[in-house]
Amino acid sequence: MQVNADRFLSDLHALRQFGAAGQGKGVIRPAFSEADIAARLWLAERMKDAGLVPQFDPVGSLFGLAEGQSLLMGSHSDTQPEGGWLDGALGVIAALEIARASAEAGGPAVSVVSFQDEEGRFGVTTGSTIWSGGLALERADELQDREGTSFAEARASMAHLAQGFVDPKRFSGFIECHIEQGPWLDEAGEAVAVVTDIVGIRDMRITFEGEQNHAGTTPMHRRRDAFQALSAFNTRINQRLRNVVTPQTVWTIGHVALHPDAHSIVPGRATFSMQWRDGDRDRLKRMESIIRDTAAEVAEELSMGLSYSQMLGLDPVLMDPHFQTALSGAAEAAAPGRWRQMQSGALHDAANVARLMPAAMLFVPSINGISHAYEEDTDERDLVTGLEVLAGAVARIG
Amino acid sequence: MQVNADRFLSDLHALRQFGAAGQGKGVIRPAFSEADIAARLWLAERMKDAGLVPQFDPVGSLFGLAEGQSLLMGSHSDTQPEGGWLDGALGVIAALEIARASAEAGGPAVSVVSFQDEEGRFGVTTGSTIWSGGLALERADELQDREGTSFAEARASMAHLAQGFVDPKRFSGFIECHIEQGPWLDEAGEAVAVVTDIVGIRDMRITFEGEQNHAGTTPMHRRRDAFQALSAFNTRINQRLRNVVTPQTVWTIGHVALHPDAHSIVPGRATFSMQWRDGDRDRLKRMESIIRDTAAEVAEELSMGLSYSQMLGLDPVLMDPHFQTALSGAAEAAAPGRWRQMQSGALHDAANVARLMPAAMLFVPSINGISHAYEEDTDERDLVTGLEVLAGAVARIG
Repeated sequence: MQVNADRFLSDLHALRQFGAAGQGKGVIRPAFSEADIAARLWLAERMKDAGLVPQFDPVGSLFGLAEGQSLLMGSHSDTQPEGGWLDGALGVIAALEIARASAEAGGPAVSVVSFQDEEGRFGVTTGSTIWSGGLALERADELQDREGTSFAEARASMAHLAQGFVDPKRFSGFIECHIEQGPWLDEAGEAVAVVTDIVGIRDMRITFEGEQNHAGTTPMHRRRDAFQALSAFNTRINQRLRNVVTPQTVWTIGHVALHPDAHSIVPGRATFSMQWRDGDRDRLKRMESIIRDTAAEVAEELSMGLSYSQMLGLDPVLMDPHFQTALSGAAEAAAPGRWRQMQSGALHDAANVARLMPAAMLFVPSINGISHAYEEDTDERDLVTGLEVLAGAVARIG
Repeated sequence: MQVNADRFLSDLHALRQFGAAGQGKGVIRPAFSEADIAARLWLAERMKDAGLVPQFDPVGSLFGLAEGQSLLMGSHSDTQPEGGWLDGALGVIAALEIARASAEAGGPAVSVVSFQDEEGRFGVTTGSTIWSGGLALERADELQDREGTSFAEARASMAHLAQGFVDPKRFSGFIECHIEQGPWLDEAGEAVAVVTDIVGIRDMRITFEGEQNHAGTTPMHRRRDAFQALSAFNTRINQRLRNVVTPQTVWTIGHVALHPDAHSIVPGRATFSMQWRDGDRDRLKRMESIIRDTAAEVAEELSMGLSYSQMLGLDPVLMDPHFQTALSGAAEAAAPGRWRQMQSGALHDAANVARLMPAAMLFVPSINGISHAYEEDTDERDLVTGLEVLAGAVARIG
């Protein structure tokens, strides 16, 4: 199979014109926006040109179907509200080129997909979650974006394009190419990474409830200051988690809400997000115990009420070993000594599709580790190397 | 001079009907609300009944003027959005009763005031700040409340009542009675406190600017997490300030804003309030040095940008020694052994009026130290004791 690098890069640049931000190569193409729908209609035309049959499903995911049983490849073409040009778009256009090249070479049948709302305007990897049975359509329809638009309303804007859901049984497996969104490949000067697994995630909100009081007349020793509880919790959790984690483990307090959030009032309530990610279910569980024990200890010491939101989570997902072997062999052939195996710390559609069929992922470098930003970029030589690795893997899978 | 406790308590309960919250004795009477204006019109009638001449100034402060040179007494009748029934209202009604009782007894002439917007819908002690020359009316008119209403618009709602500003020269001094808003008197079972000074306040916002990044793919050692900088700053500032403060010194982080404030994003920016109060200007200054040095040290260590808002401040204000002596003598007569001298950790109108004339304050207990809440209350015996101390002090001042 001979991929056409110029055709691939040309399509990739054509796609970024839909929703071009006018800043660098940045793109503004959130799920169901005019730019997103226009981009998908353009993609459907490219699929037809490649001899595939385009089919929009009821949630706006676009498939380009090869005849009979086929390998599915792709990712997503929606972006963050302020996104980069590659992200998932790379995986969609790479899949399109592999489908074309394989058909031209008389190779294995390859279908293409661009899932809808991977970026989570309405949830997390919404389109592939629904398709893989992780979320019922009726429940998804109730999800709302930040402006209060429901998923039902949003997908109605594509109703004129919708056909039925595509039967997953027609696919023998799934391969997704994506930018790394982290610094490792770029730092090491490597061209690609074969993903071993997608980490699991746990996420909840924790609330300390103290006593709201006057910031002038309440002496320090009489305060039950909820921000102080949050700060003490953060200090201790940093110390304690370091004893159980690996260098890949991460944890984040990204959201904080104080009440009443005023300069002159000792805050009576602090609600904050606690999120942690790791590739090992047992470690995620141990971290949860430490987090809950530490919060309880701080609450006890500082006389705080303590409550938790529901804990959300996705378990770690292993990538298919057979596909990993094919990708690794192709990587060594295309970029000898310049590739690695790595874990994905970010969620991807492949984590959902893995419920249905063997799934695997290939990463290309992100310059300076930047993603979800206008500055996101990858050297075009690395993009082409990634494409060649995909082609080699498909040939090996056969 | 013989005060009438029943008349005093009856007026105090009548005032709380304006804006009654329907929860306990709570009151909702923010500056310029319908309830606030109605309460002031009712007060103006009570002033007339007491032989005083009511005069609204252009910002809605209501004076009840005795003839000739007089002592001014009072506080404010506006409340927090969810306030208690006493707070400043106590000082206004106590002043009214002293004016009546003194007139009946042929004692010293006493005028009464209820300043507007002490609670700071538009600023801090807005009415008395303008009256005392701390803020030009033209600049005050540009202040906005949280909903974007300007001070100019708000005071226009009272324009039909407004006369000129009252000349401060007609007053020989100012005495304000207020609830303590803290726990000390209630805990000690004491009846009143003579205020020695009103602490100074310093207030600013500090911003740490790190690097916004993906909470899944950015390893811990590569992060420049602005929340971690805030937490580190808080821990160190707590340790370091303890070396220079007194038991009366307070400092507070009451407001925190993370950016972008999302569970899955390492926060790139943390802006927070830092406020500190103390009775000593030099100590306020030393604290400022420690705060700025510590913030700079954290920013340096964690590779953060660092910026500050303008620092706002009011210097500590000493209460008039002669008035303090009169209040102390009257306190010992009315409640022997059950009073103390104390500092005010909260701001009051008296801090502004002290620019213009000798000023002093008397505190009565707050049950459980609660204020600015529906639950705020004081034993009525303590209210009457406070009234008697004021009467005794006025008689001593002569």
